[in-house]
Amino acid sequence: MKKKICVVVASRANYGRSKFLMRAIQDCEELELQVIVGASTLLQRFGTVAKIIEQDGFHLNRSIYYVVEGENLLTQAKSTGLGIIELASAFHDLKPDMVVTIADRFETLATAVAASYLNICLVHLQGGEISGNIDDRVRHAITKLSDIHFVCTGLSRERVIGMGENPDFVFNYGCPSIDVLRNSDLSIQMLKNVKFTGTGCELDLSKPYLLMLQHPVTTSYGNGYLEISRTLLALRKFKDYQKIVLWPNIDAGSDDVSKGIRDFRESNLDEKFFFQKNFSPEEYAVVLNNATCCIGNSSSFIREGSYLGVPAVIVGDRQVGREHGENVVLSDYDEGEIEVRVKQQIDKGRFQSSDLFGNGDAGIKISNWLAKAELKDIVKSQLP
Amino acid sequence: MKKKICVVVASRANYGRSKFLMRAIQDCEELELQVIVGASTLLQRFGTVAKIIEQDGFHLNRSIYYVVEGENLLTQAKSTGLGIIELASAFHDLKPDMVVTIADRFETLATAVAASYLNICLVHLQGGEISGNIDDRVRHAITKLSDIHFVCTGLSRERVIGMGENPDFVFNYGCPSIDVLRNSDLSIQMLKNVKFTGTGCELDLSKPYLLMLQHPVTTSYGNGYLEISRTLLALRKFKDYQKIVLWPNIDAGSDDVSKGIRDFRESNLDEKFFFQKNFSPEEYAVVLNNATCCIGNSSSFIREGSYLGVPAVIVGDRQVGREHGENVVLSDYDEGEIEVRVKQQIDKGRFQSSDLFGNGDAGIKISNWLAKAELKDIVKSQLP
Amino acid sequence: MKKKICVVVASRANYGRSKFLMRAIQDCEELELQVIVGASTLLQRFGTVAKIIEQDGFHLNRSIYYVVEGENLLTQAKSTGLGIIELASAFHDLKPDMVVTIADRFETLATAVAASYLNICLVHLQGGEISGNIDDRVRHAITKLSDIHFVCTGLSRERVIGMGENPDFVFNYGCPSIDVLRNSDLSIQMLKNVKFTGTGCELDLSKPYLLMLQHPVTTSYGNGYLEISRTLLALRKFKDYQKIVLWPNIDAGSDDVSKGIRDFRESNLDEKFFFQKNFSPEEYAVVLNNATCCIGNSSSFIREGSYLGVPAVIVGDRQVGREHGENVVLSDYDEGEIEVRVKQQIDKGRFQSSDLFGNGDAGIKISNWLAKAELKDIVKSQLP
Amino acid sequence: MKKKICVVVASRANYGRSKFLMRAIQDCEELELQVIVGASTLLQRFGTVAKIIEQDGFHLNRSIYYVVEGENLLTQAKSTGLGIIELASAFHDLKPDMVVTIADRFETLATAVAASYLNICLVHLQGGEISGNIDDRVRHAITKLSDIHFVCTGLSRERVIGMGENPDFVFNYGCPSIDVLRNSDLSIQMLKNVKFTGTGCELDLSKPYLLMLQHPVTTSYGNGYLEISRTLLALRKFKDYQKIVLWPNIDAGSDDVSKGIRDFRESNLDEKFFFQKNFSPEEYAVVLNNATCCIGNSSSFIREGSYLGVPAVIVGDRQVGREHGENVVLSDYDEGEIEVRVKQQIDKGRFQSSDLFGNGDAGIKISNWLAKAELKDIVKSQLP
Repeated sequence: MKKKICVVVASRANYGRSKFLMRAIQDCEELELQVIVGASTLLQRFGTVAKIIEQDGFHLNRSIYYVVEGENLLTQAKSTGLGIIELASAFHDLKPDMVVTIADRFETLATAVAASYLNICLVHLQGGEISGNIDDRVRHAITKLSDIHFVCTGLSRERVIGMGENPDFVFNYGCPSIDVLRNSDLSIQMLKNVKFTGTGCELDLSKPYLLMLQHPVTTSYGNGYLEISRTLLALRKFKDYQKIVLWPNIDAGSDDVSKGIRDFRESNLDEKFFFQKNFSPEEYAVVLNNATCCIGNSSSFIREGSYLGVPAVIVGDRQVGREHGENVVLSDYDEGEIEVRVKQQIDKGRFQSSDLFGNGDAGIKISNWLAKAELKDIVKSQLP
Repeated sequence: MKKKICVVVASRANYGRSKFLMRAIQDCEELELQVIVGASTLLQRFGTVAKIIEQDGFHLNRSIYYVVEGENLLTQAKSTGLGIIELASAFHDLKPDMVVTIADRFETLATAVAASYLNICLVHLQGGEISGNIDDRVRHAITKLSDIHFVCTGLSRERVIGMGENPDFVFNYGCPSIDVLRNSDLSIQMLKNVKFTGTGCELDLSKPYLLMLQHPVTTSYGNGYLEISRTLLALRKFKDYQKIVLWPNIDAGSDDVSKGIRDFRESNLDEKFFFQKNFSPEEYAVVLNNATCCIGNSSSFIREGSYLGVPAVIVGDRQVGREHGENVVLSDYDEGEIEVRVKQQIDKGRFQSSDLFGNGDAGIKISNWLAKAELKDIVKSQLP
Repeated sequence: MKKKICVVVASRANYGRSKFLMRAIQDCEELELQVIVGASTLLQRFGTVAKIIEQDGFHLNRSIYYVVEGENLLTQAKSTGLGIIELASAFHDLKPDMVVTIADRFETLATAVAASYLNICLVHLQGGEISGNIDDRVRHAITKLSDIHFVCTGLSRERVIGMGENPDFVFNYGCPSIDVLRNSDLSIQMLKNVKFTGTGCELDLSKPYLLMLQHPVTTSYGNGYLEISRTLLALRKFKDYQKIVLWPNIDAGSDDVSKGIRDFRESNLDEKFFFQKNFSPEEYAVVLNNATCCIGNSSSFIREGSYLGVPAVIVGDRQVGREHGENVVLSDYDEGEIEVRVKQQIDKGRFQSSDLFGNGDAGIKISNWLAKAELKDIVKSQLP
Repeated sequence: MKKKICVVVASRANYGRSKFLMRAIQDCEELELQVIVGASTLLQRFGTVAKIIEQDGFHLNRSIYYVVEGENLLTQAKSTGLGIIELASAFHDLKPDMVVTIADRFETLATAVAASYLNICLVHLQGGEISGNIDDRVRHAITKLSDIHFVCTGLSRERVIGMGENPDFVFNYGCPSIDVLRNSDLSIQMLKNVKFTGTGCELDLSKPYLLMLQHPVTTSYGNGYLEISRTLLALRKFKDYQKIVLWPNIDAGSDDVSKGIRDFRESNLDEKFFFQKNFSPEEYAVVLNNATCCIGNSSSFIREGSYLGVPAVIVGDRQVGREHGENVVLSDYDEGEIEVRVKQQIDKGRFQSSDLFGNGDAGIKISNWLAKAELKDIVKSQLP
């Protein structure tokens, strides 16, 4: 009988990081893939990622709405609670042998708690990282709930083992998000026939552009409006470049960030800014790969960016402590400093590709391991 | 302005372990105590501990029902989810500066998740222990969500720091459950006027008795009926002793254990067994202190038992890995082995008191620390 | 394509009333049966009716736990809320063309609300009745949410139409609970090989017995203990008869009633009382049919009782206002009055069968109607 | 002791209809006002009405987030469930003597169910109306759960009584929404210093404008985009008039309607359209009063509009069956027909004021009645 592996995809970022793993599981004879989509993947204002997943050929076993609206700290907690309730029911029905949860957000914790209480073997991707946010707590808490850890860097592996996990079940196969990069033609021509649905200026991808993506920071909840505004104002200085701005994820504070973007947009209608809700993982990879510089606090600038060698300016402290390659410089939330850093990075130009986050074969390696694993031999180690 | 400390009491065991801390907070000028009672503390079949808490002079700020009935793995997960939803709303209303969560069960995790997402400083009691159950995962996950750790043993402190927590905020003041013991007259006379509400044989506490308390083990869900039956059958051999049997907690599998007890009771009406739902913490301390031997898998046999020096036989693997004093021997779920171990322990008689779990001043020490702590100076350490 | 009919069974009573309808749907070529079991049907202490349903040959499409424990008014409301959340998800997955909801309890309302908001055609059984409880409000509210009404009496039909429902979609085919009676051999020999799992005295069904079933009354929440005790004390007077006592349903106040029964049981161990959790619908029909008299407030005494002609004493006001046949007399919660009424009924002996609640072909008639109904032609009428 | 009246305000429309009642309760010596705000009143994209309520001088006893994001039929059901869970807890804490619920939406049903199950006397505003939507079912279901009914028209009173309610507790004091109109200076000068936060063209209220507000229709879920687009295109023909467009409420389908507005806005940047999220009840009254014509499906065009005599074109079937005054004409979702109807209405000009929905003293009359009501005398009538 095939081993049933249930992947829970609960955000745009989740999908970018698990797509090639999902495909590898789907292609593996010993495994049966179950897919649950939930949370913001079902919401129009986050680009209805669930539809993209279906179009990519995956069967959705369950679609679960569990975002309590409000985008503040309270509703984030309540969404976690609602997610646990419904995910537990879904796991109870689908009876997977293993559940895969990704990274460090409230949706991820809901998956981890529901699977743990149901005694289902829990597989965690991207443990052991550090970013500087409530995400750190959540990520490490998930590590302590998980049975098997597929981490993305050597240092992450050390950290997971350092927290007391059994080294026999902590694997550094690199990050599956790199798989998307390696397996795609990332030249800008790939997008020449794509009509983007965003708003703002005319967008001509054959000409230089900056890419911006800045999420709210939950531990400094309430400052998002100011933070995003400063970055936007700094970027306005770069008149020669088009600026592509992505909308933020659903974390607490998202409303503030979005409002900052909307207000900026409406008073800067003549500037060369283009605002986009969502790209498919492949589109995003191309857009990222061909950016002159990327600015904000998305971990993709660090993770995918290091592999691609794209210059990046990380603003604020959302990623403080995260390992990064040479392509990254940091900046405070300061209009002037951001401007300077971006200018410096543009001048440096493209960096060498780094394999800090893997070589692009993580999905297949993980899938192979899952195929041959014996559930009964998996032992959650205990602290000494 | 007083610092508001919110203690969430969600089970009989929680209260035994936090009562003296709650009293110390209540008595402290710099602190304001908030009490939330929830989960099984509100349920009649677990003795409605919430009423005892009120009778002890505590004001209940909120009473929250969040146990989804079923007592299986699924409903345990769903209870956690429902608890998060409502506890988050309560914290949002009460606006505590710190939230105190105790030990390692689903109710505890709900408290930890809700407080974490609301950015409220989280205080965890009894971290770093090992018991061999899903409780281990949950306990360590809570550690990774918490800001401040009040552990009960030196080894626990090492483990919490080993998981990457900031040593400046990990304190071994001993276990507040020992406070109950130190501050009470534990002679059997204390109970001479108490009329217990249990069922079964006539109970004469001036004569020797054995004490039994055996909870379900969630990771071996489904075996509870058999496990409890074997222990009961073993104890039936000790015809000369009265046997006091406490009903199990609300963990998944509780129904099975209870059914085992009920079935045994009905076919052993003439045996000297007495079945009791619940004692107040003080009553329980006296009953435990004067037992000839205690049998089962309650952590109180290890924790309070070591301080009191009461002989104990721990059955099964629910407490495997837990530190214990000399008063404890282990046994398999085997009628014969249990009988032998109990006989041996009865023969050895009373042990020396151990201070492995503290000296009985934990509540006051913790409360003093909380009073002088500056919230802004509390830094959750990051992994190296 | 077959029309999908989803029956939600959420209590022991629900099943007794829908079993023959479910069978008729299952046997109908044009229809596909979907079964969701929920709430107390999944709970051991209510006899795990879900297992009986499976043993009867029905496939369970979903098993949903949504009882929030506490058995008080607050948890009843919360159970309704939790039920709506999960039932809505289930309907969304199963995509039934019609949903069938039964009678008047919180589980039923949850079904009705979830289906209504999903624009699914809602079929209500047993509307238009009056019983004197919060059940009345709930039952009539469900009527106003429903598209199609299968009522059990002519008067009920008039009432449903009186509330403004479209007469074209209100049908009096009788109550499907009568179907169980008509299609079964109800002689006591049917049970001669059945070993009941209850507790108490030896039970010999070939000798005369009284049957008692008394539920809590939610609008007089808090009086259940006293109410049940009086009935039990009154029945103790009938020394010549065995007394079979069924445990109450899960309504608010159930805990009090159960406690009353337990306390009575323990202080009357030598009396001829037998306590049973649950019967299958067929067993219950035989037990009811052969009772010398039935006492309490179960609507089955009125409904099934009138068809069978079993003498019944209805205690208290839970069924005030309900239509009943000649087999019923009423009594106050008064030990003396109950005793007198029971004695009178025993003396009168068996009554003539009444067809007030139908002839026993309701299931097949309803199923036939559902098979030929065109969804697009169903018009919820509007008030004048 | 004062009677505690808890008003639950769960939408912009709710507040417009209860504000003067809330004020009257606040001013009444025998009554104590409790206010719970919930659902969309807390959400930025609906104008955070909760803040306006606070600024108006009301103390908010609870703020409860219970909108599950998705704006489809499924999430509407789930929001109702979540609302019941949390409102029940709030009522349990606040212990009101009476709960007031308004109109006919999912938030309203949640309030009604929670209060009913807690045996709290339920007061319903705006029962007995007909509008042609799922709202009808919900409104009438709430009627069957309620104890006291304050309706807005004579015909509504007849309908409520027709559904079997006790005539002694059905009162036609008119609609409290009219109170706002009567007690305010509604001349356009009132707004001369108000700077609106909307987007689009420059707005000069001293010049003629059309007002548009069109909500999604849940029973034709999925057509919202087309429906709104047609109305917008029709209004674009009226080049001489400014057009003020309000964003829709949170009903299922709201996302589609909003998308229609956004898409229209972006391709019609040069047209004289102004888009506004929210007005305070007083601002809205002035804007409505001074509109040359109002277009869409808001019940305010019928209710407040009839009192003010503002010409209105009701588009589609959301209000079919609702009583209306002479100021209203109906139109299909047809660009051409809408244009013609609007032109006709503009030509007719202002209508006579109608007292169909009351005279503007409903709040004070209701409050007086509540003050002198004896809870014990309130009898929910039973069907004949």
